[in-house]
Amino acid sequence: MSSSDIFIGETIGTAILILLGGGVCAAVTLKASKARNAGWVAIIFGWGFAVLTAAYTTGPISGAHLNPAVTVGIALKDGDWSNVPVYFAGQILGAMIGAVLVWIAYYGQFQAHLTDREIVGGPGAQDTKSVEAQEAQAGPVLGIFSTGPEIRNAVQNLATEIIGTFVLVLAILTQGLNDSGKGLGPLGALITALVVAGIGLSLGGPTGYAINPVRDLGPRIVHALLPLPNKGGSDWGYAWVPVVGPLIGGAIAAGIYNVAFA
Amino acid sequence: MSSSDIFIGETIGTAILILLGGGVCAAVTLKASKARNAGWVAIIFGWGFAVLTAAYTTGPISGAHLNPAVTVGIALKDGDWSNVPVYFAGQILGAMIGAVLVWIAYYGQFQAHLTDREIVGGPGAQDTKSVEAQEAQAGPVLGIFSTGPEIRNAVQNLATEIIGTFVLVLAILTQGLNDSGKGLGPLGALITALVVAGIGLSLGGPTGYAINPVRDLGPRIVHALLPLPNKGGSDWGYAWVPVVGPLIGGAIAAGIYNVAFA
Amino acid sequence: MSSSDIFIGETIGTAILILLGGGVCAAVTLKASKARNAGWVAIIFGWGFAVLTAAYTTGPISGAHLNPAVTVGIALKDGDWSNVPVYFAGQILGAMIGAVLVWIAYYGQFQAHLTDREIVGGPGAQDTKSVEAQEAQAGPVLGIFSTGPEIRNAVQNLATEIIGTFVLVLAILTQGLNDSGKGLGPLGALITALVVAGIGLSLGGPTGYAINPVRDLGPRIVHALLPLPNKGGSDWGYAWVPVVGPLIGGAIAAGIYNVAFA
Amino acid sequence: MSSSDIFIGETIGTAILILLGGGVCAAVTLKASKARNAGWVAIIFGWGFAVLTAAYTTGPISGAHLNPAVTVGIALKDGDWSNVPVYFAGQILGAMIGAVLVWIAYYGQFQAHLTDREIVGGPGAQDTKSVEAQEAQAGPVLGIFSTGPEIRNAVQNLATEIIGTFVLVLAILTQGLNDSGKGLGPLGALITALVVAGIGLSLGGPTGYAINPVRDLGPRIVHALLPLPNKGGSDWGYAWVPVVGPLIGGAIAAGIYNVAFA
Repeated sequence: MSSSDIFIGETIGTAILILLGGGVCAAVTLKASKARNAGWVAIIFGWGFAVLTAAYTTGPISGAHLNPAVTVGIALKDGDWSNVPVYFAGQILGAMIGAVLVWIAYYGQFQAHLTDREIVGGPGAQDTKSVEAQEAQAGPVLGIFSTGPEIRNAVQNLATEIIGTFVLVLAILTQGLNDSGKGLGPLGALITALVVAGIGLSLGGPTGYAINPVRDLGPRIVHALLPLPNKGGSDWGYAWVPVVGPLIGGAIAAGIYNVAFA
Repeated sequence: MSSSDIFIGETIGTAILILLGGGVCAAVTLKASKARNAGWVAIIFGWGFAVLTAAYTTGPISGAHLNPAVTVGIALKDGDWSNVPVYFAGQILGAMIGAVLVWIAYYGQFQAHLTDREIVGGPGAQDTKSVEAQEAQAGPVLGIFSTGPEIRNAVQNLATEIIGTFVLVLAILTQGLNDSGKGLGPLGALITALVVAGIGLSLGGPTGYAINPVRDLGPRIVHALLPLPNKGGSDWGYAWVPVVGPLIGGAIAAGIYNVAFA
Repeated sequence: MSSSDIFIGETIGTAILILLGGGVCAAVTLKASKARNAGWVAIIFGWGFAVLTAAYTTGPISGAHLNPAVTVGIALKDGDWSNVPVYFAGQILGAMIGAVLVWIAYYGQFQAHLTDREIVGGPGAQDTKSVEAQEAQAGPVLGIFSTGPEIRNAVQNLATEIIGTFVLVLAILTQGLNDSGKGLGPLGALITALVVAGIGLSLGGPTGYAINPVRDLGPRIVHALLPLPNKGGSDWGYAWVPVVGPLIGGAIAAGIYNVAFA
Repeated sequence: MSSSDIFIGETIGTAILILLGGGVCAAVTLKASKARNAGWVAIIFGWGFAVLTAAYTTGPISGAHLNPAVTVGIALKDGDWSNVPVYFAGQILGAMIGAVLVWIAYYGQFQAHLTDREIVGGPGAQDTKSVEAQEAQAGPVLGIFSTGPEIRNAVQNLATEIIGTFVLVLAILTQGLNDSGKGLGPLGALITALVVAGIGLSLGGPTGYAINPVRDLGPRIVHALLPLPNKGGSDWGYAWVPVVGPLIGGAIAAGIYNVAFA
């Protein structure tokens, strides 16, 4: 694969991933969405099918890593870091594009939700709702972009992200064993998607399963930049956890693969 | 493929698509249905498996486009428009047949629902419910046939439909890359179905994800023609959006494919 | 395939189909089940995965028709009726065995449910609940075995069963086109399972989607024979509809296949 | 396969299985989890995708039995018991590791849940809640580790576990017939996962579908050992049922396979 194929594939693929992944969070969260309150199972399958769509569409172009933790795991497995910067560049750019597309697709819903006085305390409610109360109520909107922990504890949150990403990357590293080195392929894309859904169902409870540094960081940057009314803060204090945890998890997976599976 | 195979395949395939897709909306919406209020996840999987059934059944006959936006995308990719009119003709005819079949399969449920005075204000409620109130209450029945926006804004609704269809058609255009040119096939049908489910989960919130001109227009025509009691209007003012948006989205997908993937 | 392979495969396969299909209805219906009230989506996937398990297990033995409507459709397509009686015999026997296995697996739940005075009016409630009231309350237990219509109208119920079975059998008849004549196979089993789930979601609302004569008749016979307390009647007046409707639907599918697809 | 590959593959695979399977139970059960009360369908798909992830990851290493009942069934089919002890050793060790990983991933949630006075009667509630009441309330936490019956009756509970495991192992034994002896493979892993989901939906109601001795015993041992506050007893009186039942079910499946399918 050429560098330009990798960059284009990862940019488009990660944009699709975050468009659909962030999209399902918007669909379930925002006022005036047909899917409002559709629940956890909807979010899980939404993210799973986001992986499927992105991986199927761009697998033949760039291999569809779509995730720096996967890129690091594969680089550690293969001992080849030459393309890693190009993968990273496409991934973070794609993640930001995807988050902007979520905002465009749900523009009316964002506006309606964030100016609803019952939800965030609109202009007419300034007297009775403090800025803090408004931010607290707007909190779920940040959740459309980035993950956040239910119980804030860096060590525990890191542990959960490491474990979840370890499971993901180890499964991806065995793809070559399952598919006789043919690469991702349609069936590989489908299984990876359902593995992500499974990690979400099983390990998503404490932190919301970033398991992918750019999945969290790209949209968080966009949240900080977008002109959303009453959007509240972007919770930068937590932002390093879903970046560092997945990278560690991917590296551990590669280490175990190299020792036990290779 | 011969023109008659294309016409027959698209007619039967799109009829199955709309029969099952409209069917799940009827199942979830109508009084005296076992699936009443089964929720958004049921609708999503219902439409997804509708795509699977239709594409699997007619893929070997016509390639199972089942959607003018897909046909346009493929024509722009291949530079061959010769079969496009035949595809379109089969698709719109099939969509109308499918909508009639929904009505036949749920005939008793439609009658019970639309004459229930608690739902639409039946004859005995004429004194207390205005025509407008009855139409408002019957609104969900139109939703069995066609899509409608939660927040009515042509630009925003177009944008959402363009984005959703772009994702769908780009995924379909890469099918040849994934399957070594073997065509749709069973696995391609399955993945396309889950991609549609994913688009529904993630981008269906604002407009109900037509992402297919005939999926919306065919059943809307049938809604206008069927002798349903208290059915209300067919919302023709919105009808152009789910026709134009998907065609634009499919064309953009083909453009990006030709520039970046070919 | 030998006659004995067909008989054994269809008996075991249909037993697994009904064990898991009836099982999910028991799981969702009965008191003291962990899945109680898990809802329509659980039932749909339960029946779908029942088809998958049965078809995957016995596909290599008998082709896994598991359904007289499928057998009739294939016989009409191939013009070969020689094995039809053996298929039918295995299917009805297997369906009855499967229903008995549901009763064994949920024995404690059936006993607890049917003797709970709040549900069916147990012994101590004889004074206040008529036999009719008890039968009405026990009604859902029949639903673990057989289907029943929400609105009882033979013509409409037949139409719904015909349409649903038509969709199923047409999809199965195209399997040879999709799989290059290789037979069912694992992917064919999976897609057939999801097609059944789709028919359930989309067309199951009015009658509960028998779409298979023995799926309904076999367990209904078992319901009539089992020593279940307070079980109520077996609704024999409806029993012919889910036998005749699917057979007609399967025959129509074969007719359309032979005219349009062959 | 070498003994060390089998041991390593089964240990890692069963650890992933129990990590994700126990994880979804923790996600749905514990306070301060985003998935709390996500329901039975979430649990079913969580366990199903746990099987998929574990089988896909370790299938090429050890064949991914992950279950002594599967190992016994295959040994009875092949008449080769030489590797059985190694399989068993990896499976029980992996199951215990997986349960510990659940505890690590959900550490904060376990602490919050088990010290919440509304849930288990924390220190301040000692006056009003007896030890028995606290244990009863903590009961669901044992359910994150091990299964338990809704109606406690050894014969009935054994029967349910035997029937469920029979269905699973028979399906797995036919894998060679479906895949031309190529072994598990990605599609085999996917179908096995959905078969497990189907067994859960259909036969999980009475006992919670262990259908795997180490899935129950390994985490039960870990429950007994972990320093969880207010954790209650480990219900050792029931522990033999989900060990013995699945082994019997697997053996019956092999017997039927050898008589009818071989």
